[in-house]
Amino acid sequence: MSDESAKKKVTIIVFSGDLDRVMAAFIIATGAASMGFEVVMFFTFWGLNVVKKNEGAIPAQGFLRKMMSRMNRGGTKRLPLSRMDMYSVGRRLMKRFMRQSGVPTVDELMAMAKSMGVKMIACTTSMGVMGVPKEVLRPEVDTVAGVATYLGNASEGNINLFI
Amino acid sequence: MSDESAKKKVTIIVFSGDLDRVMAAFIIATGAASMGFEVVMFFTFWGLNVVKKNEGAIPAQGFLRKMMSRMNRGGTKRLPLSRMDMYSVGRRLMKRFMRQSGVPTVDELMAMAKSMGVKMIACTTSMGVMGVPKEVLRPEVDTVAGVATYLGNASEGNINLFI
Amino acid sequence: MSDESAKKKVTIIVFSGDLDRVMAAFIIATGAASMGFEVVMFFTFWGLNVVKKNEGAIPAQGFLRKMMSRMNRGGTKRLPLSRMDMYSVGRRLMKRFMRQSGVPTVDELMAMAKSMGVKMIACTTSMGVMGVPKEVLRPEVDTVAGVATYLGNASEGNINLFI
Repeated sequence: MSDESAKKKVTIIVFSGDLDRVMAAFIIATGAASMGFEVVMFFTFWGLNVVKKNEGAIPAQGFLRKMMSRMNRGGTKRLPLSRMDMYSVGRRLMKRFMRQSGVPTVDELMAMAKSMGVKMIACTTSMGVMGVPKEVLRPEVDTVAGVATYLGNASEGNINLFI
Repeated sequence: MSDESAKKKVTIIVFSGDLDRVMAAFIIATGAASMGFEVVMFFTFWGLNVVKKNEGAIPAQGFLRKMMSRMNRGGTKRLPLSRMDMYSVGRRLMKRFMRQSGVPTVDELMAMAKSMGVKMIACTTSMGVMGVPKEVLRPEVDTVAGVATYLGNASEGNINLFI
Repeated sequence: MSDESAKKKVTIIVFSGDLDRVMAAFIIATGAASMGFEVVMFFTFWGLNVVKKNEGAIPAQGFLRKMMSRMNRGGTKRLPLSRMDMYSVGRRLMKRFMRQSGVPTVDELMAMAKSMGVKMIACTTSMGVMGVPKEVLRPEVDTVAGVATYLGNASEGNINLFI
């Protein structure tokens, strides 16, 4: 951090919608924010599930999109584990272990991130592909944007992760 | 990008051979190239599947390698989804949604990347391990090289992703 | 590498406990160390499995943690493949192909990394969540630490990967 020319900035592409990977992303994001880093999170593909509202159905057009929206409902309460999910037994166990270890939930981490100024961006392209309209995104999302916005941000710092 | 000392350079290790992750890699690569970044993609392990020709069998030596080459045939037409692939139903659905959203196919993105000067490198070590001879690589691949070449490139820029 | 201000430094978050991804992490780490980069590896979540001793049971408290420790036993000998593991047939095949290609095993790569000065850190937070006590970590682990230590290290270099 002796380098004056590079900003203290972290960008994280949250591609995964797996509970464990999403937790890692938020733990890094909030940790970095608390250390004074500027932090930008880009939610894309399965990662869009993290920033979908937990309540309400997604208004999808066409039978196939409806089916997909139902199978890939999303919302922080429904994120599976990347391993050992075992039809949701694993994720419930993991949540219990996290609570016992004093680790906040995804919702709590997202609220912390928001209050610390972490910027949350939903990826326009994936929203189109996955059939996710703007209305179903949580209010924590600051804006929707594309790859150019990501690259502009990433080029300003040296900690750029794809999770 | 006010920093004059660091090159505008992006490197992407394409470790995954999953359609969704590969799409993300190419969307970032072509986006970066169009913004004037120098871009280098390293295809390794399952990511080698992306740069294998779609046609023709892989000339493998030994029964086990033959079996593996058959099961892990590769080629852009055969990339599975990382989630909800459902014996290829999911990937076909995703391709349809992508087409409907105006997102190019992997083949189109690769052609765009090539024409924009994105450098594509296949990893020597993984080629050995996975039994992939040079002849089955697509002509878009500029060269084959190892980890030293990757590190030399990555050290010149600050956007270095592992996908 | 013409930039004098940024250190030649690589950090790798080893989040995955999959044999193929772990191999990639160590190949990059040892390659970088041999080129004179300072290298720091952070083992977190499933990646903790890499730095658990191969022998002995994990002394877990409570029925659920005992069950989890048994199912997620870890150790370098037990890492699955991220794809085509096929109840351990795939990983044995992959290990054979690696041996045939002259690629070292995970244990050999870890020993090489250690002797080259690669720093290995186990993540405190995940150790709590996954119920991994310090005693079951391999002696190669230099220290246990949290996200602040990771970010301090990552901010000093420009090759920061999440694997």
